[in-house]
Amino acid sequence: MTDLARFSINQMTVKQLSLPELVEACGQLGVGQVGLWREPVQAYGLAETAKLVRDAGLTVTTLCRGGFFTAIDPQERAAALADNRRAVDEAAALGTDTLVLVSGGLPPGSRDLRAARERIADALAELGPYAEDRGVRLAIEPLHPMYAADRCVVSTLAQALDLAERFPARQVGVTVDTYHIWWDDQAPAQIARAGASGRIHTFQLADWVTPLPAGVLNGRGQIGDGAIDMREWRGYVEAAGYTGPIEVELFNEELWGRDGREVLAETVERFHGVFL
Amino acid sequence: MTDLARFSINQMTVKQLSLPELVEACGQLGVGQVGLWREPVQAYGLAETAKLVRDAGLTVTTLCRGGFFTAIDPQERAAALADNRRAVDEAAALGTDTLVLVSGGLPPGSRDLRAARERIADALAELGPYAEDRGVRLAIEPLHPMYAADRCVVSTLAQALDLAERFPARQVGVTVDTYHIWWDDQAPAQIARAGASGRIHTFQLADWVTPLPAGVLNGRGQIGDGAIDMREWRGYVEAAGYTGPIEVELFNEELWGRDGREVLAETVERFHGVFL
Repeated sequence: MTDLARFSINQMTVKQLSLPELVEACGQLGVGQVGLWREPVQAYGLAETAKLVRDAGLTVTTLCRGGFFTAIDPQERAAALADNRRAVDEAAALGTDTLVLVSGGLPPGSRDLRAARERIADALAELGPYAEDRGVRLAIEPLHPMYAADRCVVSTLAQALDLAERFPARQVGVTVDTYHIWWDDQAPAQIARAGASGRIHTFQLADWVTPLPAGVLNGRGQIGDGAIDMREWRGYVEAAGYTGPIEVELFNEELWGRDGREVLAETVERFHGVFL
Repeated sequence: MTDLARFSINQMTVKQLSLPELVEACGQLGVGQVGLWREPVQAYGLAETAKLVRDAGLTVTTLCRGGFFTAIDPQERAAALADNRRAVDEAAALGTDTLVLVSGGLPPGSRDLRAARERIADALAELGPYAEDRGVRLAIEPLHPMYAADRCVVSTLAQALDLAERFPARQVGVTVDTYHIWWDDQAPAQIARAGASGRIHTFQLADWVTPLPAGVLNGRGQIGDGAIDMREWRGYVEAAGYTGPIEVELFNEELWGRDGREVLAETVERFHGVFL
């Protein structure tokens, strides 16, 4: 199962590397695929990034991220949709067919998760056709329930699929990320459900390590370091028919404090190790 | 809905109060019910605590907590069962019919959540009849999925009920705690399921506030301060037929740093406020 052709490095894992450094390190290690983030791409320049990765022969597997659809205020909603259309345009310019969506948390003062989830559906109805026209698929990412209040009211694959299935699979699917779903005994069946309708738009890995840091954002473990059986989860997505890239996306202060090339090399090695 | 007769203060909310201070403060505020923890009870003395609360006319709604059933090593398992039998005895001595169970996390080096959950069932099969003979019901508490690795492999009410339903309801039921389940769109249906078989053995409140502190243990919000609609969840448990105590159990460093009597008075006030 240790096929480097399936591996993709998400830029956030080694965010200490500039885009040219990342591209160079990928070349040296034989890594052919990267997941990118909007902010560093914008900082380097969209056209410049597209040319850089194209010239290096790199495939862009995903762009992170759109979303944040849960505002109530009409002006905020319009601004979020406009920003998401730009994210779709950026994905298309980078040559990736997948835009990852983090849906957004509860608006200030609200306690209504159901209504927030409905507003996501409203936004997808507008954004889906726009993305399809540009060859981009939206990938709703359920985030771990510990983010339900302040970051993402979509907490399970089942919820993500309940939203996605209102739209064609070529417009809206899901992100399967081990970090967010590993605890969920319903997730294997939901992966099968997602695969059956062609909605596994990306598969991402991060490991679960404790104790969690304050704010719980930047404690995602290097693969192999934590509680998640990566082989098991890869087995579920492949049994569901997924044959696409496997992206390693870590937010980890300790990893960010190290040499980025070394972290990338370690990540490749761990990728081989966990799938032995 | 603001009936103080339903209110119970969990000792952990005001752990800065000694048992006599807690009992006195309850008397002053008209609070007639308390949930106790084993460690402070043992420190004060089991018989002494039982006499103290009985003489004050207080009802003990729950004892926290048994559990930690997931060890693989036979000696560790035997020790855990022996300790849980003592916890049952303590509950009986205190006059409460409910022992809350926190099931335990993954053993060191294990990544097998399913096997850990099976070992919980094995332990319940031994402990359930022992508890029943002493008039004590076991209340499996699903903890938030952020504790799945290191504290409790039972992460949802559905999982807790899948375990509990292997046993008679007079032996094993569940703890419904808003803090752990509020994000779960399946939880309302699971509360109904629990109520239908008489398995809601206790109902606890804590609010969800962010950012979470490092370690994510002691950031439970005062009720009314966070993202959870307490009225909504009380509605679910009451629609499911639950008419028992409503216990407020907060782990919160900020609250622990204040005067305990003041925190108790505030908690009573909030209890009225959230159910207005």
